[in-house]
Amino acid sequence: MTSTVDIEKLYRGDRRTVARAITLVENGGEGAERFLTGLFGRTGGAYRIGITGPPGAGKSTLTNRLAKQYRALGRKVGIIAVDPTSPFTGGALLGDRVRMSDVETDEGVFIRSMASRGSLGGLSKKTREAADVLDAAGFDIILFETVGVGQSELDIAGAADTTVVVLVPESGDGIQAMKAGLMEIADFFVMNKADRPGAEQAVMSIRMILGFRPHDEQSWLADVVMTTASEGKGIDGVTEQIERHRTFMQRSGGFARRRADQMRARVEEIVADTFTVQFWNAERRAALERTLPDILERHRSPYAAAAELLGSARDGR
Amino acid sequence: MTSTVDIEKLYRGDRRTVARAITLVENGGEGAERFLTGLFGRTGGAYRIGITGPPGAGKSTLTNRLAKQYRALGRKVGIIAVDPTSPFTGGALLGDRVRMSDVETDEGVFIRSMASRGSLGGLSKKTREAADVLDAAGFDIILFETVGVGQSELDIAGAADTTVVVLVPESGDGIQAMKAGLMEIADFFVMNKADRPGAEQAVMSIRMILGFRPHDEQSWLADVVMTTASEGKGIDGVTEQIERHRTFMQRSGGFARRRADQMRARVEEIVADTFTVQFWNAERRAALERTLPDILERHRSPYAAAAELLGSARDGR
Repeated sequence: MTSTVDIEKLYRGDRRTVARAITLVENGGEGAERFLTGLFGRTGGAYRIGITGPPGAGKSTLTNRLAKQYRALGRKVGIIAVDPTSPFTGGALLGDRVRMSDVETDEGVFIRSMASRGSLGGLSKKTREAADVLDAAGFDIILFETVGVGQSELDIAGAADTTVVVLVPESGDGIQAMKAGLMEIADFFVMNKADRPGAEQAVMSIRMILGFRPHDEQSWLADVVMTTASEGKGIDGVTEQIERHRTFMQRSGGFARRRADQMRARVEEIVADTFTVQFWNAERRAALERTLPDILERHRSPYAAAAELLGSARDGR
Repeated sequence: MTSTVDIEKLYRGDRRTVARAITLVENGGEGAERFLTGLFGRTGGAYRIGITGPPGAGKSTLTNRLAKQYRALGRKVGIIAVDPTSPFTGGALLGDRVRMSDVETDEGVFIRSMASRGSLGGLSKKTREAADVLDAAGFDIILFETVGVGQSELDIAGAADTTVVVLVPESGDGIQAMKAGLMEIADFFVMNKADRPGAEQAVMSIRMILGFRPHDEQSWLADVVMTTASEGKGIDGVTEQIERHRTFMQRSGGFARRRADQMRARVEEIVADTFTVQFWNAERRAALERTLPDILERHRSPYAAAAELLGSARDGR
């Protein structure tokens, strides 16, 4: 598999090579790990932006517009969509499919959708690894698009340098956003579909909640930017805010701290994945099958079974 | 901690004891594990039903109605809500809060919401453990309510005996449901808000896709049940379908197979969690901190660092 990916062509940003490299990474295994170890020295240059929010907030449209804006500034843009409701991924659980063709035909934009189905666990690892491939291939900006319901948005906050939470007037007020845990992960908010009734009040209520958070002159203050992404309105405001956050984080040391936290989590994740693959050899699989009937009949607890299996590993059995 | 939970009172279904026991389980650690090991022999009797679907499909309302229906049949009902948009959890990301008070004041119903925020990983484990507590406390029916966007619905399919996917006419057609991975996990569908325009067509399109799946006389055929949960319409149809699925699964051996698969996954999960807790002792934490700057400067890959840490574990260092 590795032989099909020409690393020099990857560094030159060759699109077919990039596509093959991400497939290699998605397939996982030792080949993928060797490959990622090889290109790791070329990573770290790209700026990673997470775009999250509830379904129907217009995340794909905004991502599309941001990509165009960055292209106009001469940057190469990689898009990783991990949202099953995104038109990028072909999911569209809740309907209307926006046209992505404008950026899809641009040579300076690379779009990859990662399946969030059937790949329980390991998705956040693979998302980061795909970003590494794009990073090594010379993409300047990486946009992660992910739906912000459930746990995925926390994952993305753990992979991005700047996290943007997209809401619409219908998403509810600031208190609801706070309860949903969005205040903790948003570096700033975008109120999209700002031409709809209630947009001003929604922005005000989020600003009010944001104002209540403890902060001083040295700390970053999240704000709300209004857009109508479908008409391209307010997009400069978003890129400006991203730039403002980036500059602030780089000056304050927050950028380095965040990347350190993310890398720590990444090593932990690799440790856990490697352990799991090595642990479940044929012998332990067979031992689990032998004890399973006892557990199902409640003669034995799954905790006791797990402890015994782990004990056998410790004894080198 | 364990001392505060009286196991005999739990078996009698004392509500305050149940609440305390679930908190103990949520806090995790060795106390939780000992406690769960102790009550494991009393579990397995409850029937576990997963209710999933996109935000705004009316899952909470349906869950509420199902709880009432089962109460009318004299069953005790436990509800575990892991949906950040659910009114049960107090999240309500997308608005309208339904009244839960009818079931909340019923002694035969126990509602617990589990935070899906800030608890990256471990949530599916804790959800199952909370279900075990309710099971041991004599609840006959356990309803899991979870939002079906992202990965959570796969988790719930791995914890439930019957998985119900709730859609609304606006959710899109059968092809979209298929793309979103819902066909694989649904034991049957509920088309809620069936009084809205487009409901019949939506049902037909899902039935058409379902009809294309390979099946024979021996296999279960998922169907679509129409409801207007807010008015209590069609709820009998849902409980009948659950009963039909339960009977089918028990006769065909599918029930036992599914529970075996779930228990296997559960042991794997406990093994992984236990390993992680034991692995990251103070010494290995310190080793990771020492190597982190090298990784951040790209002199070293996180894969190499993980391999070295794992090597030290193997050498007994």
